[in-house]
Amino acid sequence: MSTSKPLNPAPHHIIKHCVDAAFAEDLGRAGDITTASIISADATTTANIVSRQPGIIAGMEVAQLAFTTANKDICFDILVGDGAPVAPGDVIAEVSGSAAGILIAERTALNFLGHLSGIATLTHQFVAAIDGTNARICCTRKTTPGLRALEKFAVRAGGGMNHRFGLDDAVLIKDNHIAAAGGIKPALVAAKAAIGHMVRIEIEVDRLDQLEEVLDEGVDVVMLDNMAPDILRQAVKMIAGRALSEASGGVNLNSVRSIAESGVDMISVGAITHSAATLDLGLDFV
Amino acid sequence: MSTSKPLNPAPHHIIKHCVDAAFAEDLGRAGDITTASIISADATTTANIVSRQPGIIAGMEVAQLAFTTANKDICFDILVGDGAPVAPGDVIAEVSGSAAGILIAERTALNFLGHLSGIATLTHQFVAAIDGTNARICCTRKTTPGLRALEKFAVRAGGGMNHRFGLDDAVLIKDNHIAAAGGIKPALVAAKAAIGHMVRIEIEVDRLDQLEEVLDEGVDVVMLDNMAPDILRQAVKMIAGRALSEASGGVNLNSVRSIAESGVDMISVGAITHSAATLDLGLDFV
Amino acid sequence: MSTSKPLNPAPHHIIKHCVDAAFAEDLGRAGDITTASIISADATTTANIVSRQPGIIAGMEVAQLAFTTANKDICFDILVGDGAPVAPGDVIAEVSGSAAGILIAERTALNFLGHLSGIATLTHQFVAAIDGTNARICCTRKTTPGLRALEKFAVRAGGGMNHRFGLDDAVLIKDNHIAAAGGIKPALVAAKAAIGHMVRIEIEVDRLDQLEEVLDEGVDVVMLDNMAPDILRQAVKMIAGRALSEASGGVNLNSVRSIAESGVDMISVGAITHSAATLDLGLDFV
Amino acid sequence: MSTSKPLNPAPHHIIKHCVDAAFAEDLGRAGDITTASIISADATTTANIVSRQPGIIAGMEVAQLAFTTANKDICFDILVGDGAPVAPGDVIAEVSGSAAGILIAERTALNFLGHLSGIATLTHQFVAAIDGTNARICCTRKTTPGLRALEKFAVRAGGGMNHRFGLDDAVLIKDNHIAAAGGIKPALVAAKAAIGHMVRIEIEVDRLDQLEEVLDEGVDVVMLDNMAPDILRQAVKMIAGRALSEASGGVNLNSVRSIAESGVDMISVGAITHSAATLDLGLDFV
Amino acid sequence: MSTSKPLNPAPHHIIKHCVDAAFAEDLGRAGDITTASIISADATTTANIVSRQPGIIAGMEVAQLAFTTANKDICFDILVGDGAPVAPGDVIAEVSGSAAGILIAERTALNFLGHLSGIATLTHQFVAAIDGTNARICCTRKTTPGLRALEKFAVRAGGGMNHRFGLDDAVLIKDNHIAAAGGIKPALVAAKAAIGHMVRIEIEVDRLDQLEEVLDEGVDVVMLDNMAPDILRQAVKMIAGRALSEASGGVNLNSVRSIAESGVDMISVGAITHSAATLDLGLDFV
Amino acid sequence: MSTSKPLNPAPHHIIKHCVDAAFAEDLGRAGDITTASIISADATTTANIVSRQPGIIAGMEVAQLAFTTANKDICFDILVGDGAPVAPGDVIAEVSGSAAGILIAERTALNFLGHLSGIATLTHQFVAAIDGTNARICCTRKTTPGLRALEKFAVRAGGGMNHRFGLDDAVLIKDNHIAAAGGIKPALVAAKAAIGHMVRIEIEVDRLDQLEEVLDEGVDVVMLDNMAPDILRQAVKMIAGRALSEASGGVNLNSVRSIAESGVDMISVGAITHSAATLDLGLDFV
Repeated sequence: MSTSKPLNPAPHHIIKHCVDAAFAEDLGRAGDITTASIISADATTTANIVSRQPGIIAGMEVAQLAFTTANKDICFDILVGDGAPVAPGDVIAEVSGSAAGILIAERTALNFLGHLSGIATLTHQFVAAIDGTNARICCTRKTTPGLRALEKFAVRAGGGMNHRFGLDDAVLIKDNHIAAAGGIKPALVAAKAAIGHMVRIEIEVDRLDQLEEVLDEGVDVVMLDNMAPDILRQAVKMIAGRALSEASGGVNLNSVRSIAESGVDMISVGAITHSAATLDLGLDFV
Repeated sequence: MSTSKPLNPAPHHIIKHCVDAAFAEDLGRAGDITTASIISADATTTANIVSRQPGIIAGMEVAQLAFTTANKDICFDILVGDGAPVAPGDVIAEVSGSAAGILIAERTALNFLGHLSGIATLTHQFVAAIDGTNARICCTRKTTPGLRALEKFAVRAGGGMNHRFGLDDAVLIKDNHIAAAGGIKPALVAAKAAIGHMVRIEIEVDRLDQLEEVLDEGVDVVMLDNMAPDILRQAVKMIAGRALSEASGGVNLNSVRSIAESGVDMISVGAITHSAATLDLGLDFV
Repeated sequence: MSTSKPLNPAPHHIIKHCVDAAFAEDLGRAGDITTASIISADATTTANIVSRQPGIIAGMEVAQLAFTTANKDICFDILVGDGAPVAPGDVIAEVSGSAAGILIAERTALNFLGHLSGIATLTHQFVAAIDGTNARICCTRKTTPGLRALEKFAVRAGGGMNHRFGLDDAVLIKDNHIAAAGGIKPALVAAKAAIGHMVRIEIEVDRLDQLEEVLDEGVDVVMLDNMAPDILRQAVKMIAGRALSEASGGVNLNSVRSIAESGVDMISVGAITHSAATLDLGLDFV
Repeated sequence: MSTSKPLNPAPHHIIKHCVDAAFAEDLGRAGDITTASIISADATTTANIVSRQPGIIAGMEVAQLAFTTANKDICFDILVGDGAPVAPGDVIAEVSGSAAGILIAERTALNFLGHLSGIATLTHQFVAAIDGTNARICCTRKTTPGLRALEKFAVRAGGGMNHRFGLDDAVLIKDNHIAAAGGIKPALVAAKAAIGHMVRIEIEVDRLDQLEEVLDEGVDVVMLDNMAPDILRQAVKMIAGRALSEASGGVNLNSVRSIAESGVDMISVGAITHSAATLDLGLDFV
Repeated sequence: MSTSKPLNPAPHHIIKHCVDAAFAEDLGRAGDITTASIISADATTTANIVSRQPGIIAGMEVAQLAFTTANKDICFDILVGDGAPVAPGDVIAEVSGSAAGILIAERTALNFLGHLSGIATLTHQFVAAIDGTNARICCTRKTTPGLRALEKFAVRAGGGMNHRFGLDDAVLIKDNHIAAAGGIKPALVAAKAAIGHMVRIEIEVDRLDQLEEVLDEGVDVVMLDNMAPDILRQAVKMIAGRALSEASGGVNLNSVRSIAESGVDMISVGAITHSAATLDLGLDFV
Repeated sequence: MSTSKPLNPAPHHIIKHCVDAAFAEDLGRAGDITTASIISADATTTANIVSRQPGIIAGMEVAQLAFTTANKDICFDILVGDGAPVAPGDVIAEVSGSAAGILIAERTALNFLGHLSGIATLTHQFVAAIDGTNARICCTRKTTPGLRALEKFAVRAGGGMNHRFGLDDAVLIKDNHIAAAGGIKPALVAAKAAIGHMVRIEIEVDRLDQLEEVLDEGVDVVMLDNMAPDILRQAVKMIAGRALSEASGGVNLNSVRSIAESGVDMISVGAITHSAATLDLGLDFV
C-alpha cells in the first residue's frame, strides 16, 4: 500500500482547462460581487488549507493553479504532497497574497481538492484492505464526465492503478461484443486483426467454460466478471499465468480482501471514482 | 416532499457542451476500437436502461443526447422522467437503433445519469427527512467542477431548491468579509451600495449577538452557521420574519429534522452535491 | 452622481476572452502585414492615448491587456482610471515599448476603450440629469451581443447600476408571461414556487389596477412600464415601500428627470448600452 | 443609393458562433428561469417582429438562427430582407412555434437585429446623402470587438462598401509607418517587396506635397486624411486616375456631400459602425 | 496487402472539428466573395470528384462532411470507399446540389481528400512491397500537427497498422530514457511499476547486447533501431517469440523488403505520414 | 533567390493555437507516461536540434513555443533563423533545461519544424530554379487543413510569395464562375460591383481569345492556366503590362524555368505546400 513510486502527473493542459472552466462557471458575468464590494483590492492575507478528516491528498497542483489564476502573485506553499496521508487538523498548504484573490479561488480550489482527495482516500482504503496480497486495485471508466484525467490521477495518488483511459487506448470485449461477433473466438480474431501491436486486449468472461475458449485463442487480460472468490480461485488456476486476471463487479470494502486472496492480479472498482465522498477540507484565515 | 412543480431544465447549450466533452474524453483519437473491430456498422439492437437501486431519476435529457450524439438515428424513449422515483428493476428508458452507437454511448450516458440521479436521490432523502416542516433543502457551491448547472438541476429534480449558482448572482457575506470590512454594518452598507436592485444579499452569523446587528441594518437572508437546534430556534424568533433564515453547517440525515423543526426557512447541504454516491443503473440488451 | 463607491471589475477571464477574439478578428491569418513590412521588430516608441471629447472613461484594463497581448513587454501606464471624467486633450494613458506591438494593438484597444467609454459617458449623462433625486439609473439586457459583461461594467463606471445580467439570475415577469399564466397572481405563485431564495422577482405592470394585484401577492420589484410621470407618482404612492419601483420605457435625457422626480427607485434605460456613440479617443505618438 | 446588387452574406460559421455566444451570455447557468417557471413547455404562439422606426434592415439570418437555436421547430418567416427599407409599423418577420422558445430568443434576436439594422440605417443615410455623385461610402476597422464580420455585412446591407477586414488583408501605410520607414518612398518600397500580388496597398497622406511622392512611387489607393473639400478637389486632380482616392476623417452627415462632390472615389466613415444607434424593433405577440 | 478487414473510422467529433477549422481558415471574415458576387444563391449543379493518379482513397467521410457543412442539402454519393484503389479517371464521388456550396467546399474537401489519400497511397506502396512476408507496416508519431487521428486513419486505409497515438497510450523507452534511468533494467522496472495493466511497453535497442538485457527483464515489443537486415535477422532469432519485434529507422521503398524478410513483426515508417505527396484529385463539373 | 527582405511572421495567436492543439493530441489524457515513469522531474539536460539534410529552415518560433509550453524554463537558443539555409550536421538550435520537458516537446517541435522547413526547402528549390528571371514563385490554397497560416509563412521563408490566404481576401474567378455568370465580362462586372476597393481581382483564362475579353474589361491579375511556355509568352505580350500575369498548372522543377522565361510575373505551385517532404531534423542530446 505504499505510494512511493513516482506519481505520473495529470497533463498540465487538462488541469488548466478544468480550472478555467471552473472559474468561468463560478464567476459568471459579474465576478465575485461580494468580495469586490467589500474587500480592498490591495488587501493581503494568509490562510491555511486544513484537513478536517483523515485521508490521502490529491490535487495540490490543481488547487495551486486555482489560486494563481485568481491572482498570479498568490504564493501557494504545498506542505503535503499528492499521495500523502493527512490527519484531522493537518495544514496541507499555506496560501498568502491578495485577500480578494484568495476569497475568489477558495471554493474552486477546495472543490477540486476535496473531490480528488476523496477519490484518493477511498482508493487507498481499498488498497489497504488487500495489503499483503499480490492483487492491485484499479479504476474503471465510471468517472465523472469531464474529469477523467484528474480522477485517474487521484486513483494513482491513492495507490491504485489505472485501467484504460477511454474506448480508444485498449480493447475490452464485453458480452455484447461476443454475442454480436458470434462467439469468443471470432471476437478475439476480429479484434487482433484490426488493432495495432501497442494495444492490449481484454475480454470479459462470466463462466469458467468461456475462460477455456479465451485461453485457447490467447489474450492479454481476462476480466472475471461477478465471480465468487472460490470461482475466481479456479479461474486463476486455469489461467496459470497465460494472461493477467482482473476481478470485476460487486467489489466493496467488505468483499475486496477475499477477492484479492483468490490470486487475481487486478481488482477493478467503479466506486472509487463514482461514489467517493469529498474529503472535508477547509480554508482557515490565519 | 412532492416534486410536482414544474422542473426548470438545465440550459441545452450546457448539456450539449458537457456531452461533447465527455465523448471527446472517452473516444480519444481512435474512437471505440473494440466496437469498430467487432460490431458491424449496420447492426441494430434494443436495450433497456434499468435501475438496480431505489432512487430519484435526473439527467434523462443528458442521457438521450449522449445516445443521439453517438448516432443521430438512435431512438431513446424516456419511460421515467426527471424527478420521478424508481424501484430496483424499473426500466427507465428504452434505447433502440445502431448497436455500435449504443455501445459507444453506454458508459457516457450512464456516467451522467448515475451521477445526477445519485444527487437527486440524496437530495430527496434530505427532503423526505424534513417532510411536514416548513423548511426547504437547498444546495451550495460545493459542486463538482464543470458540472454545476447539471448538478443544480439534479438538486431540483430531487425536490431541493437552488442556492446561488456562482459568486456573481447573489451576495453572500462571510466571516472573512465581515472582518475585512470592520464589522457587520460596514460590510452590509458596502454591499448594498455596490450591487444592483435585482441581487439578494445574505450574511453569515455565528452568534446571536451578531444577528441583532444584522437585523438592524436589514438583509434578505441570514445564514445561521453551525448553530445547534435550540440556538437556531432562538434565532428564528429574533428574526421574526424580517429576513429569510438559512441553517448551514454539519447537516446530515440524522440532524436535519431537528434543524428543520427549529423553524428555519432553508437548510443548505453541501453533501447532496459533493458526496452523493452514484445511483446504480445498467444497460441491459433485450 | 458620484462614482466614488468601489467599482466592481468585469471578470478577468471575460476580458481576456474578448481581447483574444478581437485580435483573432483583426489579425486574421497573416497578421499586420503593413507593420511587419515596414517597422523594425526591435524599434520602440512611446505614445499617449488622448481624449478628444469630454466623457467618462471605462475599459482601461481591457486596453492595457490589448497592448500587453500584442507584446508582453509594453508598458501601459494608466493616468485616468475607469469611472473618471476627462476633458478634450487629456492624456488617459501612456504606452511605451515595441513600436510594432503598439501599432498592432492600437485599433483593438481604442475600439474597446471608445465603445465602453461611450457607454459610461452616456450613462453618466443620465445619472447627472437626475442628480439630487432618489432614483438610480440602471441598464437592461439590450446590450451588444458578446459584450454584456463589459458593457455592464461600463454602466457601473458611468455611475449607473446593473439590472439582471441574463435570463437566469433574476425573474422578470412580463405581459406575455402573465397572459400565459392566466393572470398576475398565478404567474407570481408559479415563479415563487420554482425559484430559489437567493433570486429576486420583478413583474411588469402597465396599469395601476394591475399594481394592486401585484402588491397583494407580494414581489421584490415592480416594473412600471411606459407610464407618464403623474401615473408613476400614483404608483409610487400605492406601492408605499412594499416593493422597489422601476420606471421603464421611452426614457431619454429630456424625460428622465421628471420620471425621477415621480419618486421611483430605479429608471432603466436601454439606450445607454444599445445606442451610445463611441467616445472619440486617439493614440498620439510622442 | 440602390442596394439591388447581390448582397454577400456573412459566413455562416461566424453567425453561428455569435448567436451561440449570445445565448451563453444570456442563459447563464440556469436558463430562462422566468419562462421555465411560468410557461408550459408545449405552449405555442405567434409573434411579429415589427419596426418602430424607419430604417434599413440587416441581420435577418442572424435573428432566424437565434429563434431556431432556442427551439429548432420555430418557424421564422422573413417578410423584409436584408438591405430593404422599413417604415414604422412594418412587420419584418413572423415567428411561430414554441412560446418558451420565442420568449427565450426574443432579446438575443432583437439585440442583433437592432444593432445591425442600426448600422445599415446609418450607412444608408450617408449613402443617400451623396446620391448622384461618383463617390462610395465605406467602413473602417472601427467596429465593435467580436462583431466585425456581421457589422461589415450590415454596412453592405446599407449600401456601403467594405474597407479591409483586418490588418492582414490589405496594406494601409499610416503616418507612423512613414516616419518609421524614413519617408514615403522607402515605406512603399518595403511594403511592395514583402506582400503578395493579391494584396492592395493604400497610403495615408495629409498634405498635397506628400501626394506627389506617393504618385511617383505608385500605389493602389491614397487615403486623403482630414482634408477640406477644396484640397480634396486638388488632390483628385493631381491623382488623375493613377490611384483610387479615399477621403477620411471628420466625415458626418453634414459634411459628406461636399466631400463627395470633390470627386473622391471613396469616403470612409467610422461612425457607421462605432456610433450607430440601434434600430427600434419590437416583438409583438399576435 | 488486402484491406478487407473492417476499417476503424476516425472519431466523428475529430472529423467535424477538423472540417470546421478548415472552413474557418478558408472563409475568413467575408466568406467566398467570388462566389457570392457571381453565383446565384439558388443555382444548382452536379460535379464529379475524379482521380488523376493511381492510388488508394482515404477521407471520403471528411470530404462528405465538408460539402454538407457548406450546404446541408448537398448530396454526396460515395462511389469509391476508403481503402479502395483508384485508377486515373475514376470517379470517386458525385456531388450535386447548391452550386455555391459546391464551389465553397471544393478546395477544403480536396485538401483533406488529397492529403489523406496521399498517405494511404504511400502506405499501400510499402505494404505491397512486403507482400508475402510476415511483417506489417506501421506508422509513427511523425504526423502533421492537428491531423494525427485522420492521418492514422489514412494509414489504416492504406493497409498499414497504427503504432501508438500519443505519448499517453503506450510506453516507448528510448535511448535517452535508458541513459537517464541508468540502464535498460532500471528503466523497464520503473515503467512496469508505474503504468497500468492495459498498457504495452516497447523499448528501443541499438545493439544486440542490449537486446539480451531487455529479454531478460521482459517487454512487449522491442524496437530494433537502424539495424541492417542481417543484424535484424539475428535479433529476431534471439527474441525467439518472447516479444514482438519492430524495425525502425531508414526505411524506404528500396530497403523495406529486405527488412521484412529478416523476420521482424513490424516495420515503422515515418515517411508515410510526414512525407507523402498529395494524391492528385480534381472536381469536374458535369 | 535572396530572402533578405523582412520576413512577416505568422500571427502569434495562431502559432499558440497550433502548438496547444498539437500537445493536446500528443499528450492525451495521461501525458508522457514513459518520461513520467523514468525521468526525474528535476533532471536537466542539453540537446541540439541538428539538420540531417540540406534545406531552408522555417518554424523556429513554433519549435521554441513547443519547448517553453512543455516547461516554461526551458531555454531555446535559435542558432539558425527562419529563411536561412542549413547543411547536414548544422546545429540549428540549442535546447537546455528540464529533461522531461525536452523529451515531452521533442516530437511536437520536430513535427512542426520538419514540416515547415520541408515547405521552405521545396519553395526555395523552385525559387532557385528561376533565379535571374523576373518571375516570382507563389503558393496556392492547396495547404494542409489547419496549418494554412504557418505553411504560408514557410513559403515566405523559402523565398516565395503568398497568393490569397482564403476565399475572402481576394477574388479569383474560375471557369465555373465564368460559366455561371454567362461569360467573362458579366463575371468581372458582377465581382467589381460587389467587392470593396481594397480587394484584388484575378480571373482564370485557358485560351488567348479569353484573354482579349478580360483585358478589355480590366482586371488586376490574369491566371494563365495550363499554358505551354510559348503560349504564355504570347499572353504576356498581349497583356502588355495592363495586368499581372500568373502561370498556373502542371508546374514542377523541370518545367518551372521555361515557364518563368516566358515573362510571366508569378508562377503558382501547389506542390510546395501539398507535397513537400519533411526536412530531416533530429534532437541530439549533448
